[in-house]
Amino acid sequence: MKRNADEKHIEHVIEHVKKISLNPVPLHGTERTVVAVLGDERDVDQMRISAMPGVDKVMAVLNPYKLSGRETKKENTVINLGDNVTIGGDELSIMAGPCGIESAAQTEAAARAVKASGAKILRGGAFKPRTSPYSFEGLGEEGLKIMHDTAKRHNLKTITEIVDIRDVEVIDKHVDMFQVGARNMQNFNLLKEVGSTNKPILLKRGMSATIKELLLAAEHIMSKGNPNVALCERGIRTFETETRNTLALATVPLVKELSHLPIIVDPSHATGKPSLIGPMSKAAIAAGADGIIVEVHPNPEEALSDADQALTPAMFDSIMHELKPIADAVGRAL
Amino acid sequence: MKRNADEKHIEHVIEHVKKISLNPVPLHGTERTVVAVLGDERDVDQMRISAMPGVDKVMAVLNPYKLSGRETKKENTVINLGDNVTIGGDELSIMAGPCGIESAAQTEAAARAVKASGAKILRGGAFKPRTSPYSFEGLGEEGLKIMHDTAKRHNLKTITEIVDIRDVEVIDKHVDMFQVGARNMQNFNLLKEVGSTNKPILLKRGMSATIKELLLAAEHIMSKGNPNVALCERGIRTFETETRNTLALATVPLVKELSHLPIIVDPSHATGKPSLIGPMSKAAIAAGADGIIVEVHPNPEEALSDADQALTPAMFDSIMHELKPIADAVGRAL
Amino acid sequence: MKRNADEKHIEHVIEHVKKISLNPVPLHGTERTVVAVLGDERDVDQMRISAMPGVDKVMAVLNPYKLSGRETKKENTVINLGDNVTIGGDELSIMAGPCGIESAAQTEAAARAVKASGAKILRGGAFKPRTSPYSFEGLGEEGLKIMHDTAKRHNLKTITEIVDIRDVEVIDKHVDMFQVGARNMQNFNLLKEVGSTNKPILLKRGMSATIKELLLAAEHIMSKGNPNVALCERGIRTFETETRNTLALATVPLVKELSHLPIIVDPSHATGKPSLIGPMSKAAIAAGADGIIVEVHPNPEEALSDADQALTPAMFDSIMHELKPIADAVGRAL
Amino acid sequence: MKRNADEKHIEHVIEHVKKISLNPVPLHGTERTVVAVLGDERDVDQMRISAMPGVDKVMAVLNPYKLSGRETKKENTVINLGDNVTIGGDELSIMAGPCGIESAAQTEAAARAVKASGAKILRGGAFKPRTSPYSFEGLGEEGLKIMHDTAKRHNLKTITEIVDIRDVEVIDKHVDMFQVGARNMQNFNLLKEVGSTNKPILLKRGMSATIKELLLAAEHIMSKGNPNVALCERGIRTFETETRNTLALATVPLVKELSHLPIIVDPSHATGKPSLIGPMSKAAIAAGADGIIVEVHPNPEEALSDADQALTPAMFDSIMHELKPIADAVGRAL
Repeated sequence: MKRNADEKHIEHVIEHVKKISLNPVPLHGTERTVVAVLGDERDVDQMRISAMPGVDKVMAVLNPYKLSGRETKKENTVINLGDNVTIGGDELSIMAGPCGIESAAQTEAAARAVKASGAKILRGGAFKPRTSPYSFEGLGEEGLKIMHDTAKRHNLKTITEIVDIRDVEVIDKHVDMFQVGARNMQNFNLLKEVGSTNKPILLKRGMSATIKELLLAAEHIMSKGNPNVALCERGIRTFETETRNTLALATVPLVKELSHLPIIVDPSHATGKPSLIGPMSKAAIAAGADGIIVEVHPNPEEALSDADQALTPAMFDSIMHELKPIADAVGRAL
Repeated sequence: MKRNADEKHIEHVIEHVKKISLNPVPLHGTERTVVAVLGDERDVDQMRISAMPGVDKVMAVLNPYKLSGRETKKENTVINLGDNVTIGGDELSIMAGPCGIESAAQTEAAARAVKASGAKILRGGAFKPRTSPYSFEGLGEEGLKIMHDTAKRHNLKTITEIVDIRDVEVIDKHVDMFQVGARNMQNFNLLKEVGSTNKPILLKRGMSATIKELLLAAEHIMSKGNPNVALCERGIRTFETETRNTLALATVPLVKELSHLPIIVDPSHATGKPSLIGPMSKAAIAAGADGIIVEVHPNPEEALSDADQALTPAMFDSIMHELKPIADAVGRAL
Repeated sequence: MKRNADEKHIEHVIEHVKKISLNPVPLHGTERTVVAVLGDERDVDQMRISAMPGVDKVMAVLNPYKLSGRETKKENTVINLGDNVTIGGDELSIMAGPCGIESAAQTEAAARAVKASGAKILRGGAFKPRTSPYSFEGLGEEGLKIMHDTAKRHNLKTITEIVDIRDVEVIDKHVDMFQVGARNMQNFNLLKEVGSTNKPILLKRGMSATIKELLLAAEHIMSKGNPNVALCERGIRTFETETRNTLALATVPLVKELSHLPIIVDPSHATGKPSLIGPMSKAAIAAGADGIIVEVHPNPEEALSDADQALTPAMFDSIMHELKPIADAVGRAL
Repeated sequence: MKRNADEKHIEHVIEHVKKISLNPVPLHGTERTVVAVLGDERDVDQMRISAMPGVDKVMAVLNPYKLSGRETKKENTVINLGDNVTIGGDELSIMAGPCGIESAAQTEAAARAVKASGAKILRGGAFKPRTSPYSFEGLGEEGLKIMHDTAKRHNLKTITEIVDIRDVEVIDKHVDMFQVGARNMQNFNLLKEVGSTNKPILLKRGMSATIKELLLAAEHIMSKGNPNVALCERGIRTFETETRNTLALATVPLVKELSHLPIIVDPSHATGKPSLIGPMSKAAIAAGADGIIVEVHPNPEEALSDADQALTPAMFDSIMHELKPIADAVGRAL
């Protein structure tokens, strides 16, 4: 309560807390009164209490998420994509491929390369959200089919980004795993739609989302019955402009404490610089990440999107070799 | 080019620039070579050039937007909502109303109050995007109808937020103006859909969007043929936690330099504190904003969403009285 | 306490709280136990309690500052510089002058101009902290003398930045008011030294300092016995690069709520663009600021520092004319 | 130049560039004219050109630092502290010890513990800069003496933070290496004073400093003749509040590209959480850091400062064991 809150205001808050079946405990301090609330505060509309006269602020003790929280489920979630491909288990998950599916030939070259270097999941975009209205926008369903056929030939699983809620069905039909991009992390209707499918979802952290908000976004998906959510740290926006975003690797061990969900790191979008992707991949695995997702293009210079951050197959292969001893050091299979 | 780029690499870039019909001018400096490009660089895929061997970085001289830029159109855009209600003209635009449409009675009380104090546009949400999956989610089309009927009775124009691309049609049917919220500023498919209607659009700045990105988002809408875009500064996310967001008012005069589009300020979401809304409204108008959008609820404590930042009708009325002399001081009608 | 904290850990915290003469109240909730602490928590070393086994986090209810807080002193602080020049009273304080004192002629021209337009305080730097080691570093004491003599001739008060703790005495001798720059806001030894003089101090907000940290920095000065502190909002560092910093004007009314100290706005450093200084000055006064501090140079193009953000005397004069009706509108004298 | 700049303005800029002995090349594009400048732009006062009529903006191609840049010196700098203790060579540097030197007994216990686990450099503060004016401020020279004697007994090198320019001499007398803290990264006078000694300096990145600014701060030290600068990434301030700061590990490989100076990581201040220090130490080494600096206290709960982020000797020992295989994986000795 505010320092100058009068008895009537305090009483009003206490009555409200009782009305919603929680237990209020007024604590009269030297400067002000605090009304402690016993019970599950997640049931409280904190904003309503904030709006009451005499109230200074409402401080939450419990985290706002439940299903995604470690307190609800102690053991790690392991997502099973079939054919012994898992996310969050002993084996690290390597997702690699071009930013955009451009043609059957480009996809074939990318798939062959990433498979040869050890990746088990092929990434690629068919619907490209572009910051400029004048850019390549993807092949659509045709791209999904190319991806599906190519991956099957190489015994790879597939993941693609969904950018339009109207595409849930078509992606669900052709692809093994949804990716929800940073810009859609708080597109709650989209979260619920993918939460209503039974496909696993890679949920990327929003560019300015807190870790709590990321877990709360996972909660939206899980509240629809789909428990197969993997989180993805892909950098946040800060004042630093030398890298595209600021990769916040402490997110990895912190998420491991707060949640049972797997966490993947995307060093490509996080840094925007091919030369930094290797060191950041190693750092991610050393920090405890369950895998990485990187952009690999058979010929980056000819890429129709994000050309500047794509690895060549040779660079990717070299990174995979460097990752092996780090994986060993932290007891993970690769 | 990088300091150690060899002739072959420089030649490769020069060839590429020629191929896309622009004019390359190599400048050999003391430490490195720079290839200047004459022509409209917006036609260049900068990322592809960045990916070429020997290239250090690509620096853009022109702004990436055209239609929304002041260079393309010198005179201010004035949006006409009919019945002499305009945005961007001499008269300031005041948009006010509850966060969510909760009932006919609540909407009626809100509409009557904001009209009496001088607002000409009623705001209210029918589809609420909520950070928690366990919160009130709006009345949907029923809410839009209530809003429409109530506004008509009070001779008010209406604005509501669109949060799902599938709702374009139903909102277009009942409401005078779309609001694209901060979370959807880069939902490019949604931007194009509203850009394909002929309703005016209030485009809110994303929580971590730069001013350039805001103008580029407007470009997405305008590229579909809809020129009636008003921008909205609603605060950005920073390290400061005393206010919900950080209201960046320098955006207002800067947008006026860079663009011909009107700009509105939202002090409610920017601060999250009713006591700061008055001062920030005055500051916004003094800075040259074309209006404000604020949350007013007949009984904030009972509000089903954003209760803590809603103004009471009395507070709103008092702010409107204080705004008048500021409007006079900057030569705007209110 | 953590969810799994055992009785022994809880008892340990309770014992510690008793030992430091505060009153612990254990609250047993559904998921975890909270130990409320009654008494003045500012006496508690929160980090020590955080380090105790079983403790999850320590949440503070009271603000960490006292002397600068509105709760300690209800009425506004008015700083008196003599000759009817005050800061924080009815009259707005206008501080203007060049970034650096470069010569007697330049200072004379600047002083004459700012005085003619209505400023009462001449600003100017004699010791320039420069980001590049290869730049102009100021005239030192010679500059202070020029400033003092020129100001006296024009009946102006003076303010200059202190950048080296060893300069307290020489500045105290020649100048009416210290300015502590953004980079020194948490240079606690310097704060204490200027707090030990009896000259007023303008304390600028650090580039990444929270409002609470700003008030706590003022506390360092005031704890040495000097109550004459004026705060200064000069923009914070964010991801936006179109302006030099992001001017956070909501700081103004918020500081007025939290503290009794005056607050000045610096639109020059905040924006770095002369064309934005006028609109932001008007916005600052409309928001309730007690004055502004701006850079004015007789010939910006020849300025030896910060040339790009200096106003010409004509631009400054024009801004002062525009400020007048805004001052009237908020009931302040100019 | 601005789109509407006239010939006279362009000519004025060209004349100025010639006057400062550089070579101007006007490029007439479709929308505006660009004046390219050949020569070492670091000699140009960009702000003066920015202030010229008709100029839109000045874009730098070269980096603003020289001595700290990789372009000036290709091979890595290796700092030699004597007795085979180096920073930046094959062996990783482990700096460990309490936040503050509190007593001979505490220092002895800390020194013995960190030595036993493999650290070669003892860290500890004698002059504590505290955000609250009501906290423990360190033992001063007495603390330095304790540190010196204890370290000698255990054959450890020492590092301590300098917070007051007046303490250069006394620290130089007792300690092997200066630490310049985040708050002083742009205290240019202090940088020059330590740059005038011949002791190595650990320069911590400011809380909101860019990587370029960090390298420019190193330039201030090096311009005084002291080449022994090690940089330190210790987290930057962002909107995320779950960790004290956001550890930006991409800084490590980026600094390795841009500079020849060693770089150390401080996971204690970066995260503020003991449980995250291990994973972040491993990630730092995997990313290519030359070492870590961590807080270790014989009894964190009794620490007089930063108690909440100190490791116990047992935790530190365990982290050192986990670091070994990571060091092996990246080919570094530990």
